[in-house]
Amino acid sequence: MIRAAVMPAPRRPVEVREFPEPAPEPGGMVLDEVVSEVCGTDVHLWHGRLAGVPYPIIPGHVSVGRVRETGGRVTDVEGNPIEPGAFVTFLDVHETCGACWFCLVAKQSTRCPRRKVYGITYSANDGLLGGWSERIVLKPGVRAIPLPESVRPQTLIAGGCGLATAVHAIERAEIRLQDLVVVQGSGPVGLSAALLALLSGAGRVVVVGDPPNRLAIARELGADVTISVAETTPEERLELVRAETGRRGADVVIEATGNPAAVREGMRMARDGGRYVVAGHYTDAGEVSLNPHQEINRKHLEIRGTWGADYSHFHRMVGILARHPEVGWERMIGRTYLLDETNEALADVEAGRVVKAVISAYG
Amino acid sequence: MIRAAVMPAPRRPVEVREFPEPAPEPGGMVLDEVVSEVCGTDVHLWHGRLAGVPYPIIPGHVSVGRVRETGGRVTDVEGNPIEPGAFVTFLDVHETCGACWFCLVAKQSTRCPRRKVYGITYSANDGLLGGWSERIVLKPGVRAIPLPESVRPQTLIAGGCGLATAVHAIERAEIRLQDLVVVQGSGPVGLSAALLALLSGAGRVVVVGDPPNRLAIARELGADVTISVAETTPEERLELVRAETGRRGADVVIEATGNPAAVREGMRMARDGGRYVVAGHYTDAGEVSLNPHQEINRKHLEIRGTWGADYSHFHRMVGILARHPEVGWERMIGRTYLLDETNEALADVEAGRVVKAVISAYG
Amino acid sequence: MIRAAVMPAPRRPVEVREFPEPAPEPGGMVLDEVVSEVCGTDVHLWHGRLAGVPYPIIPGHVSVGRVRETGGRVTDVEGNPIEPGAFVTFLDVHETCGACWFCLVAKQSTRCPRRKVYGITYSANDGLLGGWSERIVLKPGVRAIPLPESVRPQTLIAGGCGLATAVHAIERAEIRLQDLVVVQGSGPVGLSAALLALLSGAGRVVVVGDPPNRLAIARELGADVTISVAETTPEERLELVRAETGRRGADVVIEATGNPAAVREGMRMARDGGRYVVAGHYTDAGEVSLNPHQEINRKHLEIRGTWGADYSHFHRMVGILARHPEVGWERMIGRTYLLDETNEALADVEAGRVVKAVISAYG
Amino acid sequence: MIRAAVMPAPRRPVEVREFPEPAPEPGGMVLDEVVSEVCGTDVHLWHGRLAGVPYPIIPGHVSVGRVRETGGRVTDVEGNPIEPGAFVTFLDVHETCGACWFCLVAKQSTRCPRRKVYGITYSANDGLLGGWSERIVLKPGVRAIPLPESVRPQTLIAGGCGLATAVHAIERAEIRLQDLVVVQGSGPVGLSAALLALLSGAGRVVVVGDPPNRLAIARELGADVTISVAETTPEERLELVRAETGRRGADVVIEATGNPAAVREGMRMARDGGRYVVAGHYTDAGEVSLNPHQEINRKHLEIRGTWGADYSHFHRMVGILARHPEVGWERMIGRTYLLDETNEALADVEAGRVVKAVISAYG
Repeated sequence: MIRAAVMPAPRRPVEVREFPEPAPEPGGMVLDEVVSEVCGTDVHLWHGRLAGVPYPIIPGHVSVGRVRETGGRVTDVEGNPIEPGAFVTFLDVHETCGACWFCLVAKQSTRCPRRKVYGITYSANDGLLGGWSERIVLKPGVRAIPLPESVRPQTLIAGGCGLATAVHAIERAEIRLQDLVVVQGSGPVGLSAALLALLSGAGRVVVVGDPPNRLAIARELGADVTISVAETTPEERLELVRAETGRRGADVVIEATGNPAAVREGMRMARDGGRYVVAGHYTDAGEVSLNPHQEINRKHLEIRGTWGADYSHFHRMVGILARHPEVGWERMIGRTYLLDETNEALADVEAGRVVKAVISAYG
Repeated sequence: MIRAAVMPAPRRPVEVREFPEPAPEPGGMVLDEVVSEVCGTDVHLWHGRLAGVPYPIIPGHVSVGRVRETGGRVTDVEGNPIEPGAFVTFLDVHETCGACWFCLVAKQSTRCPRRKVYGITYSANDGLLGGWSERIVLKPGVRAIPLPESVRPQTLIAGGCGLATAVHAIERAEIRLQDLVVVQGSGPVGLSAALLALLSGAGRVVVVGDPPNRLAIARELGADVTISVAETTPEERLELVRAETGRRGADVVIEATGNPAAVREGMRMARDGGRYVVAGHYTDAGEVSLNPHQEINRKHLEIRGTWGADYSHFHRMVGILARHPEVGWERMIGRTYLLDETNEALADVEAGRVVKAVISAYG
Repeated sequence: MIRAAVMPAPRRPVEVREFPEPAPEPGGMVLDEVVSEVCGTDVHLWHGRLAGVPYPIIPGHVSVGRVRETGGRVTDVEGNPIEPGAFVTFLDVHETCGACWFCLVAKQSTRCPRRKVYGITYSANDGLLGGWSERIVLKPGVRAIPLPESVRPQTLIAGGCGLATAVHAIERAEIRLQDLVVVQGSGPVGLSAALLALLSGAGRVVVVGDPPNRLAIARELGADVTISVAETTPEERLELVRAETGRRGADVVIEATGNPAAVREGMRMARDGGRYVVAGHYTDAGEVSLNPHQEINRKHLEIRGTWGADYSHFHRMVGILARHPEVGWERMIGRTYLLDETNEALADVEAGRVVKAVISAYG
Repeated sequence: MIRAAVMPAPRRPVEVREFPEPAPEPGGMVLDEVVSEVCGTDVHLWHGRLAGVPYPIIPGHVSVGRVRETGGRVTDVEGNPIEPGAFVTFLDVHETCGACWFCLVAKQSTRCPRRKVYGITYSANDGLLGGWSERIVLKPGVRAIPLPESVRPQTLIAGGCGLATAVHAIERAEIRLQDLVVVQGSGPVGLSAALLALLSGAGRVVVVGDPPNRLAIARELGADVTISVAETTPEERLELVRAETGRRGADVVIEATGNPAAVREGMRMARDGGRYVVAGHYTDAGEVSLNPHQEINRKHLEIRGTWGADYSHFHRMVGILARHPEVGWERMIGRTYLLDETNEALADVEAGRVVKAVISAYG
């Protein structure tokens, strides 16, 4: 039998359950799990903060597995066959329909109403469709990416969901050479966004976050300045940003906090005519009050929401990991947990004790 | 002596004062006023809602005059000379420096800190630098535009400041053929934005505003649907917009109300992945509460503030007036007031009794 | 038996052949043809100018049919069911894979190597997959659009392939209010592009083409100026365009001729910093010589190629037809031909004797 | 007396002439020259390939000087005063009018007909308005930039005109993370463009050029692959690029050769839907033949010409030089020449014996 960690319902302990050995559908695959991720979203899932989740679920939306068996010929986007033994990751988003108004007219597949997400919107009753499991079943049409030789499974998961989300956010940020960028938040998305801003040619990157160990990582990654939220007031932070940006505010501010109050603060940190990317509000964390005249209109501010990621972002992420070994991606990983340690992993992530918690079914 | 209407201080009656006959500076001009405008901004000025206004002022930032005298050779942007007798309008914004970070690096001259605005940031002590006056002095460097033959002074002023502002807002809205557009507000900016959305190829235009006579003008201009704010609740309005837009919300929403509550409502009226242009908050009207997850992030919304207009918008406005006589622009004008009737004009505009009030020094 | 017009091989007469009555696949449909189109591409097909065409083929890539039978439940992009009796058109492009690099990373489905096109890249041996036939078989996944009540089959075909192509070209042209637009060509694409430029708010539209009856249609559609190619030299045309555009050249030039020499001429007609959209070279018509310094570099010209159309363009086209009955679309139609008159239709299109030739299997 | 190198007429030796000691105009400055540049444009000037050059001229359009005297208070774009003793560079483009159609409506100041360029369109009869001179006179309104402490004069000139031009080209290239970029040309513009592509997050950069020492510099700067033009045929180069780019061609190709034949080759090196920036054709080098169907239309190619640079590019360049000391900018400099060695410098640049030749009036 196959062991998998199941989240039975909100705020109930995750438990290891047994499932029958799966077989691949034609065009699909079965993977042996190598590593999966405990993302902030998994904490939200445990609290029941997302609507429409079909508990019980097997969490783990970004993972690496080793191909055990394929359902006939399966290829990557280049048309190259994927064979048993290959290490692959895969886009968690599945069943984007390619047939609805959002897919075809708006060309925004992240809003396709048919999309399903591994580890989030598939039920454990539907099969081994999450990464916290000894096996992962890739249904036909799931977009798998073989890892380049230089990208180890640990490296991929060190980037993980946060890096793919940040690739999308940076795309929306349209950073130009020498732009001054502020990133709000120093979790996986925030640290990834700061790094990608640097790789995009930013002139100066300021990270606003906490706790100190994450700010230290931000500086190691190349951030020019870090500001501790715990040790400053909003006015002091605004003043610090202004001091770094010629009193004008930042060209680009990227929000990666999930804290509504940060949204107004971030708008104020941007310069007139600047850009503000809201990437951190994956779940509903409440409201914030703002002044449309001061924060939007007179400021000529451009605000862009970004939610999730599509295949292109995931694909570029793999390339970035391969291209930039100097980053030392694995410094993001705090600890690796076994399947029966996932409750501890969730608690550590929620408390901020680790930047990134990794699940490994086989240790 | 020359008569001009002077706003001596906030909430004090406008009064007609006498000034000496002006002479043009070299490179400048003196105009005989033909028509000027009473814009919503003038009501804000009367209430003292704008910071840094050097009262006493001569209001009137968009005007048409007849050239009385030039200070030597003066040309338009095409290099053609402007001669006495010509009817001209001019961009109210002056002294954009062309030498600061905003002018040269950000290329956003509307945020140049040196800019001065006729009728708003020039004092009556500096000269006849507003349109509510028998003479208007154009300083050297003021960008004057000769009216094309087909554009009468009354036509220009019927467009006026609201149309130039709407040209800027529509530029930021990037409307595509067949987009569904909602305009919030039915004052001069809102009606102009609705019209320009139609001229840009919108598939359907909904105007949300009041009172009934303005909504009637919106329909005459071609709006497909109008919704009375007074007769509906916010939820009803949202429902009406959804009914018009395949339940998805609008591709583009343009705010032209100056009401903070409208901002959240407008975000909700936009579809996922849509665009929201905030054009109506020229002055500070307070705050609004919103939910970053629901209204920005998950929605992939793109929000763009737009404030004022630059020469390019003013230039395009004149072309639009000449190109589209079928609009019947002058229907926007409610009444023409003499210089000693400007207090009445301000009251009529504030009460919404007229869409557009026009000042004519010579009647 | 079902009658269909078959193009057996390049430069061989089209002939009517008989096929067995088809049945729909699950998720597919069978239509009774109402109207189909003879497009310039069909002339190219007849001459054998496209590579990889699997003759014999049933031409006709844009068509309207009446649903005869569906293979179970079939829906449009809004999720509404399509029932027998409905009049539908459909995107000729089929089998875009949604799984390759172009579909997923570049997000340019018009370059998907798997795409198949009705009437062009399907063989008559594969079935009734072209519009010049009594029946049209829509395979599962073909994107059908029910005609709105106000759009008659004749109206849709009057727009046809040329209008969908022009919607794509206009999207790439990014016309702004009051832009000066030159369209090179007065065939279905050129006339459509001129019309769409007007609907997008162009300030002035010049059409360069021939013969006189097409230029007359251009003027009826609203073009401000037409220039006959036969009656002018290239230098005279350039001079005429400069005279219409303040000596600067056009803000936007759209090429819809298929004539290589027009490409250099069009570049020269654009102003410095302008935009040039090359839409007319669907097939290889040879080379042109140009000067990169004069025509591209010093000019800051932006040149954009556009080939074919995707679902979004087709979808917007239907909306445009419904929105703008004042256009009198059917004036584009020269004559309607029966299935055994298609050779005559091809000859008339090639000779420019009709703007648009329509095929109707049932007359 | 002041010594300056004067180019008296096309193809006549440069000679050192004496001029009276200049004094600054109000709002202007006089500099002691520190370094100036011999750019490929200077070679074009010597051959008389640019139209409208008012020989005799003092060449040298990008330079660094030390402020000797100011005509009263002079500030940089931040409003900070520039004092005697400061090291400054300055934008060579002067007198952009801010009043014409290109400045105000198109917002493309590089096409302003009034613009004058130091070292190119000012005559030696107008004063010391070029960098090959002991003194440089900055007229009022010339945009000077004080060098940051970390940017030595040698560093600035190592970037020089080529880097500013490349900043503009990269802006037009809109490189995204992981894009595959080909740069055609390995002179100062090409090497700078390759470097900036890397700093913008390109996934892979290929430089096509010569001679071997320049290709070696390209590799030292980080280029992944270099291709020698002398050792390959066009077909071999195309094949090498395809091999590096998954057979699709590059996402972005940047032309920096000035060779017309390279333009067609570059179009072919770009992938379908890619982007091609033509930056190298500052002067007229003749024509090239291309196929609009294959190279533009079917390819969905986007081609963008870019000519010169504006203040924003120059400003960003200084920031890039300060930000990235790891580049070792000064490796670009081949040799420093005295004022009476400028003919030798021109010959060395034309022969490609040095990447960058520097002029220093004081040695």
